[in-house]
Amino acid sequence: MRVSELSRATGVPVATIKYYLREGLLPPGEQTATNQAEYTDRHVDRLRLVRVLREIGDLSIEAIGAITTALDDPSLSRHQLLGIAHRAISPFDATTHTNELEDVDRLLGQLGWDISADAPDRQGLADALASLRSVAGPISVDTFMPYAQAADALAAMEIAGLPDEGPSERAVEYTVVGTVVYGAALSALRRLAQEHHSASRRHGTPEH
Amino acid sequence: MRVSELSRATGVPVATIKYYLREGLLPPGEQTATNQAEYTDRHVDRLRLVRVLREIGDLSIEAIGAITTALDDPSLSRHQLLGIAHRAISPFDATTHTNELEDVDRLLGQLGWDISADAPDRQGLADALASLRSVAGPISVDTFMPYAQAADALAAMEIAGLPDEGPSERAVEYTVVGTVVYGAALSALRRLAQEHHSASRRHGTPEH
Repeated sequence: MRVSELSRATGVPVATIKYYLREGLLPPGEQTATNQAEYTDRHVDRLRLVRVLREIGDLSIEAIGAITTALDDPSLSRHQLLGIAHRAISPFDATTHTNELEDVDRLLGQLGWDISADAPDRQGLADALASLRSVAGPISVDTFMPYAQAADALAAMEIAGLPDEGPSERAVEYTVVGTVVYGAALSALRRLAQEHHSASRRHGTPEH
Repeated sequence: MRVSELSRATGVPVATIKYYLREGLLPPGEQTATNQAEYTDRHVDRLRLVRVLREIGDLSIEAIGAITTALDDPSLSRHQLLGIAHRAISPFDATTHTNELEDVDRLLGQLGWDISADAPDRQGLADALASLRSVAGPISVDTFMPYAQAADALAAMEIAGLPDEGPSERAVEYTVVGTVVYGAALSALRRLAQEHHSASRRHGTPEH
């Protein structure tokens, strides 16, 4: 298909498609004339993926580029790809809160989780704990335990539900989308549940 | 204390403090001379709050302004304040996915949650569902049910743990911080748990 048809099929404007091509988020089409290229269903799938990562994940062009480059590397296992996606998604830099990082590592050890030393979310948890302490005084890292247990149950379900390891590009893309979209859904559902429980408490109505 | 001491007490640079004063995120100090103002412990607390909302919540100055204005309004109940904080925190605009919004409302009805019609997270869930469908085909809204149940248990614990309704500014600030910081922690913990379960699956080691 031509670029105009690709735009119609995905709802992404032609100018945006050309920008993604320049930034390498979308592989080039097959050149059929000096100013014309042919695109395939693979481009449609990739554009939908980029769109979801932009709109729901609120990811930068750079972060999406890291993910699409990894998707196009057939030597990566699904586990490696998940690691690259997590690094692109996580908003955290190296922490300066070394006491809190020790506390977080003790929590992860208690949970028995097998986490790589450079996982940005380890640093992010240390920053979150330091922030809590800055506004609310001494708080134990155990405050995160109910959240860790809920996350553990959800992640076990998510990983068990993935199709067996294989070269299916769609399955891998779905893993990345799932991490972003279900993450956004979980955050939204927690706030909605807070609203519900806050309303119940205020009205004195029985909890469900 | 002087502005330089306020900066030392909080680690926020003087130029940033002046910016927050201009934007109304921080109430003015008491003027003691033409070019000098006195600040109190209340300013220290407020600056720490703004810092956490910036660094962990990644909120815009505008969103933080909506929260601090609400904090300074003694006529608001804690439930109303939570609603204002949720609106400032939620990254979602009005959805264009009306089919998905109907599905989300059916899910919320099934859960028995009491949600206001203009909650942005309702719209956000509809967008998330539309995104999933755009990359993965027909998917039922029930895909969110395990996330909703986990969110329900966490929110019930969070709201029950709040001190009784009262004018305590610290308690209210802590509610806002908790929504942002525990939300970031939950997202980070879910990704860490995914890494753990993905590693367990790859290595064929027993799950914990």
